[in-house]
Amino acid sequence: MAATRAKTKRSARGYTWEDVEVLAYKAEGAAPFKDVTRQVLFRDPHLAAEWRYFEVAPGGHTTLERHRHVHAVMVIRGRGACLVGDEVHPIGPHDLITVPPLAWHQFRATQNEPLGFLCLVNAERDRPELPGPADLQSLRQNPRVADFIRV
Amino acid sequence: MAATRAKTKRSARGYTWEDVEVLAYKAEGAAPFKDVTRQVLFRDPHLAAEWRYFEVAPGGHTTLERHRHVHAVMVIRGRGACLVGDEVHPIGPHDLITVPPLAWHQFRATQNEPLGFLCLVNAERDRPELPGPADLQSLRQNPRVADFIRV
Repeated sequence: MAATRAKTKRSARGYTWEDVEVLAYKAEGAAPFKDVTRQVLFRDPHLAAEWRYFEVAPGGHTTLERHRHVHAVMVIRGRGACLVGDEVHPIGPHDLITVPPLAWHQFRATQNEPLGFLCLVNAERDRPELPGPADLQSLRQNPRVADFIRV
Repeated sequence: MAATRAKTKRSARGYTWEDVEVLAYKAEGAAPFKDVTRQVLFRDPHLAAEWRYFEVAPGGHTTLERHRHVHAVMVIRGRGACLVGDEVHPIGPHDLITVPPLAWHQFRATQNEPLGFLCLVNAERDRPELPGPADLQSLRQNPRVADFIRV
């Protein structure tokens, strides 16, 4: 397939974009998650990073996972909460979240509204790792973390 | 100076952010521009890209320039217009703009409001080039472009 260059301008239509497909977050059954969509806004051979938009429906959550690559995140829709390492934070419009290497992390739409966020990652990156029983036991030592990942 | 890790969460306060300095767009006199500020939201040794926020005050504009590295842009505040190559586009909230290698480009706050946009670039990138007289003559062949770059 010939590479096609992105249009100069791709208009926003609510929280979808011209020429951007709304994708499943992950393959069903590949990892635990609930009610999340993914859109790849920028992926370009000239760009060393990919810029994505994820949207979590009310009550939904991303996968609890970790990896060596970092996430740079900005919320652009709604409110919710995130776990990064052993920190739990309420998050809202335009807040910035940094997920450092190997920090367990998860995003939840804890309010009665969708939570949408931009997420920047390196184009070349490692695959996420899921927590094993020992990891979960360790995470649950912290009551705030235990409360966050319960569900 | 020891490297300090970014806080996990940095709250938005209007269009400024906790622990993010509002900087001059460029050194005064280095290149033509008018009423632009720059904030570096994410710059991390683990990240191959930098994520910045630029804000152009009403009537202001960025430098007309080009370079080999690409820009991935999302508007998050106000409306305005951009030039990319020989295309002029009105732009508004959440619109995406791709600036390919060596395309002349400029952003203008053409409406009576600030124009704020996120801009992603590779951490390693070349320096911008300003148009010389021959470049400007060539750009002005297109009446829409001539009208856009006229100040």
